[in-house]
Amino acid sequence: MKTNPGRFFEDYRLGEVIHHAVPRTVAEGERALYHALYPQRFALYSSDLFAINSGLDGSPLDDLIAFHTVFGKTVPDISLNAVANLGYAEGRFLRPVWPGDTLRAVSEVIGLKQNSNGKSGVVWVRTTGLNQNEEPVLSYVRWVMVRKRDPEASAPDTTIPDLAPHVAAQDLALPEGLTFANYDTALAGEPHRASDYDIGEVIDHVDGVTIEEAEHMMATRLWQNTAKVHFDATHRQDGKRLIYGGHIISLARALSFNGLANAQMIAAINAGAHANPCFAGDTVRAWSEVLDKAPLSQTVAALRLRLVATKGAAGDLKDEAGKYRPEVLLDLDYWALMPA
Amino acid sequence: MKTNPGRFFEDYRLGEVIHHAVPRTVAEGERALYHALYPQRFALYSSDLFAINSGLDGSPLDDLIAFHTVFGKTVPDISLNAVANLGYAEGRFLRPVWPGDTLRAVSEVIGLKQNSNGKSGVVWVRTTGLNQNEEPVLSYVRWVMVRKRDPEASAPDTTIPDLAPHVAAQDLALPEGLTFANYDTALAGEPHRASDYDIGEVIDHVDGVTIEEAEHMMATRLWQNTAKVHFDATHRQDGKRLIYGGHIISLARALSFNGLANAQMIAAINAGAHANPCFAGDTVRAWSEVLDKAPLSQTVAALRLRLVATKGAAGDLKDEAGKYRPEVLLDLDYWALMPA
Amino acid sequence: MKTNPGRFFEDYRLGEVIHHAVPRTVAEGERALYHALYPQRFALYSSDLFAINSGLDGSPLDDLIAFHTVFGKTVPDISLNAVANLGYAEGRFLRPVWPGDTLRAVSEVIGLKQNSNGKSGVVWVRTTGLNQNEEPVLSYVRWVMVRKRDPEASAPDTTIPDLAPHVAAQDLALPEGLTFANYDTALAGEPHRASDYDIGEVIDHVDGVTIEEAEHMMATRLWQNTAKVHFDATHRQDGKRLIYGGHIISLARALSFNGLANAQMIAAINAGAHANPCFAGDTVRAWSEVLDKAPLSQTVAALRLRLVATKGAAGDLKDEAGKYRPEVLLDLDYWALMPA
Repeated sequence: MKTNPGRFFEDYRLGEVIHHAVPRTVAEGERALYHALYPQRFALYSSDLFAINSGLDGSPLDDLIAFHTVFGKTVPDISLNAVANLGYAEGRFLRPVWPGDTLRAVSEVIGLKQNSNGKSGVVWVRTTGLNQNEEPVLSYVRWVMVRKRDPEASAPDTTIPDLAPHVAAQDLALPEGLTFANYDTALAGEPHRASDYDIGEVIDHVDGVTIEEAEHMMATRLWQNTAKVHFDATHRQDGKRLIYGGHIISLARALSFNGLANAQMIAAINAGAHANPCFAGDTVRAWSEVLDKAPLSQTVAALRLRLVATKGAAGDLKDEAGKYRPEVLLDLDYWALMPA
Repeated sequence: MKTNPGRFFEDYRLGEVIHHAVPRTVAEGERALYHALYPQRFALYSSDLFAINSGLDGSPLDDLIAFHTVFGKTVPDISLNAVANLGYAEGRFLRPVWPGDTLRAVSEVIGLKQNSNGKSGVVWVRTTGLNQNEEPVLSYVRWVMVRKRDPEASAPDTTIPDLAPHVAAQDLALPEGLTFANYDTALAGEPHRASDYDIGEVIDHVDGVTIEEAEHMMATRLWQNTAKVHFDATHRQDGKRLIYGGHIISLARALSFNGLANAQMIAAINAGAHANPCFAGDTVRAWSEVLDKAPLSQTVAALRLRLVATKGAAGDLKDEAGKYRPEVLLDLDYWALMPA
Repeated sequence: MKTNPGRFFEDYRLGEVIHHAVPRTVAEGERALYHALYPQRFALYSSDLFAINSGLDGSPLDDLIAFHTVFGKTVPDISLNAVANLGYAEGRFLRPVWPGDTLRAVSEVIGLKQNSNGKSGVVWVRTTGLNQNEEPVLSYVRWVMVRKRDPEASAPDTTIPDLAPHVAAQDLALPEGLTFANYDTALAGEPHRASDYDIGEVIDHVDGVTIEEAEHMMATRLWQNTAKVHFDATHRQDGKRLIYGGHIISLARALSFNGLANAQMIAAINAGAHANPCFAGDTVRAWSEVLDKAPLSQTVAALRLRLVATKGAAGDLKDEAGKYRPEVLLDLDYWALMPA
């Protein structure tokens, strides 16, 4: 058998290190496509001049281009036979990705727990994205529920990793040289600095975007994510293609510009849930809640944000039973860098 | 309130200068997408060699990439609460935009007139696109009808700017170095030079293109144009997304290659009307009429063209009452540069 | 008449050389779009590092970008009035295309045969793609059935070119410097080298992709292919846009990664048939058969492959009458380069 059937739960070993295939050079073409697929306007990722004025060598590629590229590499080894993508933790953006960089991904299996039904189990991996100099550009933990090939295969010892509830502010990586000393709020699009946001403040990002099949498939292919369910309308019984959860992350993050225009860079992903599936034709909206704030340097602060994407009107996140309401698509907890 | 509600009619002051947000670096990725979204074949924007042979340093980015990028920047400040985009005048392309250039936009309010109903008014702005060296790359006037926030707000003094009916040929900017002395009509695609066109001549561009939602949304996002009506299928009562008028300009201009293959560069936009809305599923065709001709140098001439886009068959532009017929989408008056 | 009506059968002369219009510079933007439009993962075209490790200066543009770009240039002169694209032969990829290269195309008429009905005829052309240094990058023969403008026009002498049934292994061009001495199968995605494949072996590539209108039109425009039938929903009586056959070639080749991940580069196209039309909404799958093998250098071997694309389940290629079954879209015979 020459084709890749993907790994099943019993194929993972604790401590195992998986070198994911197909390194990828990302450049200005990926950036242009990213900006065509999402209503992305954060100035640092839009203008070389703005980035240079912020102490960088030029405009890096969008932080989520790095995330999606690294995530996509892991799919054939981690989630081809996944039943569900359960969560993210300890995601840290360690270094900007520049046009021309070549990324690859490595994952370490850090947790295993067979489900009580004996048919599947949960696999925790810590994935690191590396550039052509073998420098880490980002790192995150995700856990997925994976089917067993053979229900009779013996269960591994249960190991549940000890994960931080969120990345501590002091662990956020400040890109080398980054300063907002000369920050131009008029060019950035809004006057609000970190000091203008209150913990607990909620921002409705107002705009909505109706998603098309061609768009989410082009995005997902660009990250070389091969999960069948995104591309093959005959794969699910309902004839629908499930949209890659990362497409909703990027869409919601881009929509959040309206009200968070100065939250320029993502520094960490603390947690995330793809609360409900999204399909072409859905109209996606977003709101944010300020969870925390922290100074990082004299001019740069971090804002910890909950970013929620919904289809239809925004409302309560969960029902009385603590279950996400059906219109909620995404509940993401992240740190962003902005002028102090 | 952190989000941008947009400006209303009473927020504009005559003479006010607005620096629009989010400068943007445009490069080869934007060019590739432009050529994927429109059937663009003008050789000067397709081939570095052809452009070098025409005295330039390489192939500039398509003239309409510059236009859309600058236009897109103005949307949050000028047309977020616009009822209608009423017209263009005095549009001049002043300097090519090269891959890697960073563009920003500045607008001056040059006219104000409240409507007799007291609920809205017309705002005229002269917008200039600037590159990273603060050199103007294009400039144009447009006027829009904008809602008032407060119908009771007092009306400003009426000022209607004195606009040229069209850009005079002597005011057209010839890109530095441009020469058609070594022009290769075989490579350009057609043998017809400016001298082969007669004033009054009409050219049916033959081909039709059926528009998809994903295409017009990707284009409009690429220009960071945020008008809700283009993206949110729930925004209008009929559930349709209105296509950005500039998408029709680019599509019609690209279709005009067939019959005007040597009309390489747009030098000016004299006037333009988005006669009727366009929606996904419409099949767009185009025809041109030669309005005027002028020599610009020994080898370069300007052709003044009316470019009309229609859905369905071409026919008369207007009905007996002087109103655009419902199948007419665009009526654009522009100058193009071509071999003399 | 200023527009191009295309050539009719009686317009071709044996031995005539046609210089096709609109040279095109291709770069990283075209690559990013290619990777967004097709699930392309061959490592040599994905990573500069992988390519450098294979003895090249960096990652070339995907081989089929070169093919489609050159093919697209020929459409206005060869197939605007074609009834059918009948076949390919003697296709050889002669030199990688690098980002920034400018391609043009030249065709020589090498065969003519009027059909017995007198209304159309078959035209054979040998097309060569040239880069900015006038070096050939690829060359292939295709033949098309073209309508006559005037059924009364006299028939040319019949000349049917003598074409090789397939390119001989010794005629394959090995890109300068290419070596798989340091080949990393983990990074490439699969362990199978040429020696692991048996002649006659069949590989089902498993995955399926459902095609959207926006995707095939963007691809086809990117190659400046102007055939009306791909873009204009009103052109055919059934209101369907026919998908460019090359879109299916690229899609099937990308799907073949799963099982042929090390078949890095296309070296030759021996033959090809677009067996049935494909439309948006079709779900495309692919399988390959190993037809032959040949060593090319100490580290590089060539695998001759039949690549078949189908809609719906894979099955027999032809019915009892020798006619392609309706679900078969493509039957392509090509040589690929892979580690020996």
